[in-house]
Amino acid sequence: MTAEALPTTTRAAVLTGLNQPLEILELELPPLKPGQLLVEVAYSGVCHSQLNEARGRKGADPYIPHAMGHEGAGRVLAVGEGVTKVGVGDAVILTWIKGQGADVPSTVYGSALGPVNSGAIATFMERCITCENRVVPLPEGLPLREAALLGCAVPTGGGVVMNSGAVTGGKSVAVFGVGGIGSAAVAVAAALGAAPLIAVDVVPEKLETARRFGASHTIDARSEDVPARIREIAGGSGVDLAVEAAGVPKVMEQAFASVRTGGGLCVLAGNVTAGETIRLDPYDLIKGRRLVGTWGGETQPDRDLPLYARMAGEGKLDLTAMIGRVYGLDEINQALDDLESGRVLRPIIAFRS
Amino acid sequence: MTAEALPTTTRAAVLTGLNQPLEILELELPPLKPGQLLVEVAYSGVCHSQLNEARGRKGADPYIPHAMGHEGAGRVLAVGEGVTKVGVGDAVILTWIKGQGADVPSTVYGSALGPVNSGAIATFMERCITCENRVVPLPEGLPLREAALLGCAVPTGGGVVMNSGAVTGGKSVAVFGVGGIGSAAVAVAAALGAAPLIAVDVVPEKLETARRFGASHTIDARSEDVPARIREIAGGSGVDLAVEAAGVPKVMEQAFASVRTGGGLCVLAGNVTAGETIRLDPYDLIKGRRLVGTWGGETQPDRDLPLYARMAGEGKLDLTAMIGRVYGLDEINQALDDLESGRVLRPIIAFRS
Ligand SMILES: [Zn+2]
Ligand SMILES: [Zn+2]
Repeated sequence: MTAEALPTTTRAAVLTGLNQPLEILELELPPLKPGQLLVEVAYSGVCHSQLNEARGRKGADPYIPHAMGHEGAGRVLAVGEGVTKVGVGDAVILTWIKGQGADVPSTVYGSALGPVNSGAIATFMERCITCENRVVPLPEGLPLREAALLGCAVPTGGGVVMNSGAVTGGKSVAVFGVGGIGSAAVAVAAALGAAPLIAVDVVPEKLETARRFGASHTIDARSEDVPARIREIAGGSGVDLAVEAAGVPKVMEQAFASVRTGGGLCVLAGNVTAGETIRLDPYDLIKGRRLVGTWGGETQPDRDLPLYARMAGEGKLDLTAMIGRVYGLDEINQALDDLESGRVLRPIIAFRS
Repeated sequence: MTAEALPTTTRAAVLTGLNQPLEILELELPPLKPGQLLVEVAYSGVCHSQLNEARGRKGADPYIPHAMGHEGAGRVLAVGEGVTKVGVGDAVILTWIKGQGADVPSTVYGSALGPVNSGAIATFMERCITCENRVVPLPEGLPLREAALLGCAVPTGGGVVMNSGAVTGGKSVAVFGVGGIGSAAVAVAAALGAAPLIAVDVVPEKLETARRFGASHTIDARSEDVPARIREIAGGSGVDLAVEAAGVPKVMEQAFASVRTGGGLCVLAGNVTAGETIRLDPYDLIKGRRLVGTWGGETQPDRDLPLYARMAGEGKLDLTAMIGRVYGLDEINQALDDLESGRVLRPIIAFRS
């Protein structure tokens, strides 16, 4: 670890209270623990997980003041003892999904407000301290801006399709809710040859987006009986795989009703609001409709992220089209608002260091 | 096929109307189709599936008049064209669960009432016509009476544990509802080394029975907070496997809440009443609690039934203790009543031919 000439502070967007705008604070970087890295963040994604936390939809946040953001890309400035996966100067993807290497669960930054807490990763900051198992070496040819999408949306939505659903050519897939996770699910399902590939949403523009990412059929859930229409398109008792990416109980029930008996799988991949429940007919389970949840699409980052980069390189996965709008760190609250309103598919924060 | 000297009629218990006692009728045996067998039934089990059908709890029965029973054991009297799995004189287990061999979905018997319908198997009759994939050669050393249990209760309850749950030594298991399926699940889990092995019921005698089959702990659901007590016994966030064998929505919800996060599995194996629903917190699914239904415990009869016979032969699976009471065919309605009231674990019909 080369400590000299390294920056000792960073600007960061910090949650200082539920349902308040994030505050931009100047943080002091503590010394690296073994297994940690200091990364100069180039780009960070902004996702519903942060939005829900900031808006109090995950319940109380015991970590406030809390440094936020869990997906990005950047360049390694320094490594702590024992880190072998990457070295100083390497470009990396930053992801909350655990991969190989040392796991260091938390960091406490100094600030004028007192200590600021961070988990193993926080990316709404110019420079962040993370640990070996939250970085993946940047695959060749992948721009850092697009790489930020591989930290969360693409492996979550894509992993549901590729890992949980084991989709291969000719399997029928329906994706409910075409936001960041849903559009990644559609795009990866298309890259894997899913057919028919059905997108369901209530926003016509999102259905248009889904077509661009490869959906063969779209259903406006406001005007159609969704499970019936899906059975009509897919034939038989439903699709092989339904991905629920909306996080809405009624939609979950619809998605479950849309998979075929005798082995159809419904994966809940949306962000769920605490305390909400769904209602099922157990006989559907007995008839072999399957229902599972996922937390990151069973992603193994070191194995899967290079696969997505390859699909992108071969022109099968249009990452650039998934980027909604690029914001500066000072615009972080605008980015959260735009994500919440659905105006922007996936906001990206660009840093200038 | 040796047609001469074969019996041409049989007595059978037939459902002639929902919510009416079964009627004992004299049926004419039609000629065997290719792939079928004529079996002299020695013993038949009586299970909730027949009970629910007779009581109208599965909805309308379009097959009335309908020959009932789907599990038993007997001896082959004749075989149709193409049957190679067993020959005349062989002892066989009769099971509704499909195995290897020809599948002949239905038979129509003649009677004074007109045609009587049967599915691929019906065992409430002295002689029955079934097909090659519904018989398994009787494993050596297994008495025919105990073999009748291998046609339904044991593979359903045992299959949930052995196949769906992949239970091995040291896995923690909870069984909800200790009737025919539940006691088989407890007995097979004990034979496979499950620990702790927790039985849950509301009838103290059934909890006693569960102890006899190998349960290490019992919980009276009337007087305890079941998921909390299970977490206390198993440690952590719950058991590796919960088997719901009661067919009651509230119990299904409790069973699901009793499995551990990060991979615990709840299997719904009870007979469900049409139209009843359960309520779940999707976040439980996302945390990795798994919920599936089963129809016969993923049993492959030709592979699994000999395994249960071996466990019985080695003294690890006490089939004899599972037999509640033995009835004659004329007592079939008494057997159904006793099953319904819970007075008898597993009624067995014995035939005298
Ligand atoms: Zn995210
Ligand atoms: Zn049965």
